[in-house]
Amino acid sequence: MSRPRLRDLGITVGRLPTGPHNAITDVPGVRVGQVSVIYDEPMVARTGVTIIAPREGPVSRDRVFAGYHSFNGCGAMTGLLWLEESGQLSSEIALTGTYTVGTVYDALVRAMQEGYGSHLPVVAETYDGFLNEGPAFHVTQEHVLQAISQASDGPVAEGNVGGGTGMKCHDFKGGIGTASRIAPLRCCNFTVGALVQANQGDRIDLMVKGVPVGQEIGPERVPLPQLGPEEQGSSIIVILATDAPLLPFQCRRLAQRAVIGLARTGSYGHNWSGDIFLAFATGNHLTSTTAEPDTVRMLPNSELDPLFLAAGEAVEEAILNALCAAETMTGQKGRVVHALPTDDLLAIMKRYNRL
Amino acid sequence: MSRPRLRDLGITVGRLPTGPHNAITDVPGVRVGQVSVIYDEPMVARTGVTIIAPREGPVSRDRVFAGYHSFNGCGAMTGLLWLEESGQLSSEIALTGTYTVGTVYDALVRAMQEGYGSHLPVVAETYDGFLNEGPAFHVTQEHVLQAISQASDGPVAEGNVGGGTGMKCHDFKGGIGTASRIAPLRCCNFTVGALVQANQGDRIDLMVKGVPVGQEIGPERVPLPQLGPEEQGSSIIVILATDAPLLPFQCRRLAQRAVIGLARTGSYGHNWSGDIFLAFATGNHLTSTTAEPDTVRMLPNSELDPLFLAAGEAVEEAILNALCAAETMTGQKGRVVHALPTDDLLAIMKRYNRL
Amino acid sequence: MSRPRLRDLGITVGRLPTGPHNAITDVPGVRVGQVSVIYDEPMVARTGVTIIAPREGPVSRDRVFAGYHSFNGCGAMTGLLWLEESGQLSSEIALTGTYTVGTVYDALVRAMQEGYGSHLPVVAETYDGFLNEGPAFHVTQEHVLQAISQASDGPVAEGNVGGGTGMKCHDFKGGIGTASRIAPLRCCNFTVGALVQANQGDRIDLMVKGVPVGQEIGPERVPLPQLGPEEQGSSIIVILATDAPLLPFQCRRLAQRAVIGLARTGSYGHNWSGDIFLAFATGNHLTSTTAEPDTVRMLPNSELDPLFLAAGEAVEEAILNALCAAETMTGQKGRVVHALPTDDLLAIMKRYNRL
Amino acid sequence: MSRPRLRDLGITVGRLPTGPHNAITDVPGVRVGQVSVIYDEPMVARTGVTIIAPREGPVSRDRVFAGYHSFNGCGAMTGLLWLEESGQLSSEIALTGTYTVGTVYDALVRAMQEGYGSHLPVVAETYDGFLNEGPAFHVTQEHVLQAISQASDGPVAEGNVGGGTGMKCHDFKGGIGTASRIAPLRCCNFTVGALVQANQGDRIDLMVKGVPVGQEIGPERVPLPQLGPEEQGSSIIVILATDAPLLPFQCRRLAQRAVIGLARTGSYGHNWSGDIFLAFATGNHLTSTTAEPDTVRMLPNSELDPLFLAAGEAVEEAILNALCAAETMTGQKGRVVHALPTDDLLAIMKRYNRL
Repeated sequence: MSRPRLRDLGITVGRLPTGPHNAITDVPGVRVGQVSVIYDEPMVARTGVTIIAPREGPVSRDRVFAGYHSFNGCGAMTGLLWLEESGQLSSEIALTGTYTVGTVYDALVRAMQEGYGSHLPVVAETYDGFLNEGPAFHVTQEHVLQAISQASDGPVAEGNVGGGTGMKCHDFKGGIGTASRIAPLRCCNFTVGALVQANQGDRIDLMVKGVPVGQEIGPERVPLPQLGPEEQGSSIIVILATDAPLLPFQCRRLAQRAVIGLARTGSYGHNWSGDIFLAFATGNHLTSTTAEPDTVRMLPNSELDPLFLAAGEAVEEAILNALCAAETMTGQKGRVVHALPTDDLLAIMKRYNRL
Repeated sequence: MSRPRLRDLGITVGRLPTGPHNAITDVPGVRVGQVSVIYDEPMVARTGVTIIAPREGPVSRDRVFAGYHSFNGCGAMTGLLWLEESGQLSSEIALTGTYTVGTVYDALVRAMQEGYGSHLPVVAETYDGFLNEGPAFHVTQEHVLQAISQASDGPVAEGNVGGGTGMKCHDFKGGIGTASRIAPLRCCNFTVGALVQANQGDRIDLMVKGVPVGQEIGPERVPLPQLGPEEQGSSIIVILATDAPLLPFQCRRLAQRAVIGLARTGSYGHNWSGDIFLAFATGNHLTSTTAEPDTVRMLPNSELDPLFLAAGEAVEEAILNALCAAETMTGQKGRVVHALPTDDLLAIMKRYNRL
Repeated sequence: MSRPRLRDLGITVGRLPTGPHNAITDVPGVRVGQVSVIYDEPMVARTGVTIIAPREGPVSRDRVFAGYHSFNGCGAMTGLLWLEESGQLSSEIALTGTYTVGTVYDALVRAMQEGYGSHLPVVAETYDGFLNEGPAFHVTQEHVLQAISQASDGPVAEGNVGGGTGMKCHDFKGGIGTASRIAPLRCCNFTVGALVQANQGDRIDLMVKGVPVGQEIGPERVPLPQLGPEEQGSSIIVILATDAPLLPFQCRRLAQRAVIGLARTGSYGHNWSGDIFLAFATGNHLTSTTAEPDTVRMLPNSELDPLFLAAGEAVEEAILNALCAAETMTGQKGRVVHALPTDDLLAIMKRYNRL
Repeated sequence: MSRPRLRDLGITVGRLPTGPHNAITDVPGVRVGQVSVIYDEPMVARTGVTIIAPREGPVSRDRVFAGYHSFNGCGAMTGLLWLEESGQLSSEIALTGTYTVGTVYDALVRAMQEGYGSHLPVVAETYDGFLNEGPAFHVTQEHVLQAISQASDGPVAEGNVGGGTGMKCHDFKGGIGTASRIAPLRCCNFTVGALVQANQGDRIDLMVKGVPVGQEIGPERVPLPQLGPEEQGSSIIVILATDAPLLPFQCRRLAQRAVIGLARTGSYGHNWSGDIFLAFATGNHLTSTTAEPDTVRMLPNSELDPLFLAAGEAVEEAILNALCAAETMTGQKGRVVHALPTDDLLAIMKRYNRL
């Protein structure tokens, strides 16, 4: 039985309403597919791949405007030079572990034969080498193709799943989390959805609504993972989606707001952290390479504040959803990363009058 | 009699200790000079200029490495192209209101004759046009030269002073604020100091340690300023100083952490906000243009985390210090911006168990 | 009598046709106004201001998409943070000398009362301190307002005029230059216009169509200006305009192509050079801040190559036009900067079979 | 028998002297290893991999400062986020074709077990899909490890070799090219070396010393490759090395000068081109992660001009060396890309008085 999400616990962050699934898939057309790779022989695998597909069909044939921001760049997200130069995302996005970026990249190049992926695919990673044995290539091209073919809308599995399988977050078990917000603009409502692969942070810094939850749950209560010097890696990948008609520079602005959610859960951008954010906007359809000028829609800059607010809130909640969903996991060499104890979380939040 | 600072109220943010003055001047050599320009005839002036001098003498003769980050660029900070290209700051920094950037710029060019300022000076602004009548040029070149000559170390005046005279922040009176942190590195301790000119944000978003203070102090308790459509401007300039021997790219990284302090006080980067951060590092002395390679010191990237943490904490506290220090002010057309009521703040923080 | 332009000499660069005036004003709606400030008492003034107005009326009410690129940032161009954040140019552009940036900035802020200029104006400079006595503020606010009011379409004065009055270029007399190209796209033709304030480069590096003209015209033929250590400044500001419907990131791409024209005339980006390029696109009209999404047009990225080619060619020719137009000038302390001798130029080009 | 290099033909570009091998390996410690993958069954392979090793040993243990610049980003170079954030290059650099980025990436991750490569390797590509059949993964991990182990100093093979095997350049056969310059600084001499994987440009634009060589060698003289709509890809990767003690921001500045060499051979940055430049500086040794500040050397910015000049010249000559060295090649579907005919080149240069 799965663990409750943050809101199921009675904890809300922010002031905007969520979409129906409180997930990135609340943005129409966005789909998520995840394959987890977990086995113990011949090596211990605790890894996987998560695909975010911006469109119902291949995004290479119906591209989206996009932009990115790197808050701290100790990590990889491929394909960004073309994304920035063209203003567009023309590849499905793949999230995986550090060791399997190349394989996933190859798979997305190969997938072009079916219209998916791209010559210049977007593959991002965080480091799962504490639980997951490596360097090794547990994720195969077939896993990636499977994740693409299984991608769907509706609720999104969170925690120990897909690319997030082996991740830790603030010294608890981390992984995939998602959330969404309905942003009330003057003209109409738009949805902003976030999906994170959360592997960042130290216990001491974790906060929920400003409450120092990480300090309140000491190592005597929940043991810390015993990291070696090689395992300092901590990172978070954030994917933001919106159905608002944003231009590329506005997508970049939206991406930059992901840091608000990080800051409010206790991050400050560690040196060894790859805190990389990509935002795409489905409100324009870039389908052709005709010779004629395209007509596209653009929200006036003056209208963007609700979207910016929504992005920060959705990222904050997506991180906390990852922590709530992820279950205790044992990996290589008997190492254990413990789940965030939700009973403790509730008791602490009550003590600070935040329920 | 001046109002208490945040810590005097018994409220602490973050976990690092402060420097002796809890001010940017805790970084050895850094000096601050401020001139406030306040009069009612022939036009209503509620403005001024704040100078941050990185060195005891002219910085043009003993330059510092520097970097910047723009979280949202609806504002001006001149001199950034050369700062980025050269990796260095060779001008005193001036903060003022939107209308007087040009005059202050001219003054810093003129000051070169005494060794101060620069051909390419750094002048930043936030918009004080709600209280301060304009477009008008209340700040003169003489005010700037006076602020340079008065610059000193030691405690820094906060609130309605210098460039911050006419500012508002989260719909309370804002202005200048400062704070510092001692960052414990493995090798030794370094100081990080912040000075802000705080003019950003809406009431509803103000938070202190995660507590929704802005929502708790409604407009029926403290009236909101009645902004016209022309007065949406809201911005914050952050100057960070450290005595750590950082290279330019590391200064940029430090500057980027200012957003952590903004996020934790409720900002998310409004469209009409100029949220611009500059960091300089005094730990290297760039005095000459000899033909020989210079020898400089550089902290390994792996050691930077305490500085990053310190930057976020110092900015957070500097913003709250600006709010605590600023007193209710009446400006043009009888407009009033009210001070944050500290009694209310204390009562609210107690209710959330945060004292 | 004015000197011939490059084409009048029978020298053509590039393979695209020019517009009717071979000037930035060939882009419909673009206007240029220039005021030269030349006197000998009480100080020697050899300076001025050039205004580029993107629209027939104030651009603040009918904004243009824009982008910029800095090839080497030892110079000032104000207003770039907001230009990049908003994707738009909402101020007339002013070019002037290093000492008068602040005054011109103030003038553009004041001009807002008539709808011109901006809170965050765009003012760029190159260093005219070899001929022009300073630090001094020869250009006044009134000069700027005069340049705005005189701005017109049609032919553009080149050489020792406006902001370019006191400039030197490759150790010959430099200043303002302009050129244009008609770019043949598959859908239709668009115009790209360039205006430069040319103050860059050493004699030895000047080339025309690859011919080492600067080396062929030695100091024994035309003396070099005798620069002191304080007068190493050399810079070029490039303004590109097009009527193509480009989005902001495409304007940035266009701006970046200005370097092609610099490279082909012999520049390589000196350390003390401010080589800063701004491009705007008049093909979309951004007039309102309504709540509804705007409809804008966008050229597909695949169609941009002719515009890129046109930008490089127009900048190359604008630089050479500045050199051809500028006449020998005597400035402070009896210093002389000599014009490029066009007879020599023709003889050299003939020797290399390039006429 | 190999074809002559540009200088062997009596054509010199620029005014600085070359290093002993006129190759990137003239920078002490820099090594190059190349494996070409050429076969016809079961698919036609015309591809390979080129390794640039900045140090005699693994660069992960003795890192170099580095920076990059993208002139046009329609291409991939992985690892740039960390390179920019850390200011350092800690991976050998690999150049390959578009289809094999993932495999080469995996190989460099695997090579970490021997100290080579990196968690975040630098892999760049240009598109060889005109001659080379794909999507396919002709380059294997073993090829990469072989190229690393064979890397050596001394002369560097050019033309149809390594990553450059299947490339075309200005509609002639392209590939790998290299060159170097000795830059005379006031303090001492430093070497700048360039290596390019040249796949860029159209015939019509090719110029040598400003001479329109591409226009002079028409398709009736040397046929153009018949590109389909899918084969518009054209790109150039430039790697610059220097033994000067540059800081990261100075490396970025050096990288940006690569565009000078491109411009002078006829490029202007096509939309579908990935023109990506990386520069590293071996003059500092970053070997440890001690807690203490490192001492590093830094050239004053004022001394950089000879290095900037050298970078432009070396890139220009490296591109022309690639064209001179590459031999006519037949690939998939009987497609042929012809070599630049050096006899024609000489005759043309003579006609323009440039020998």
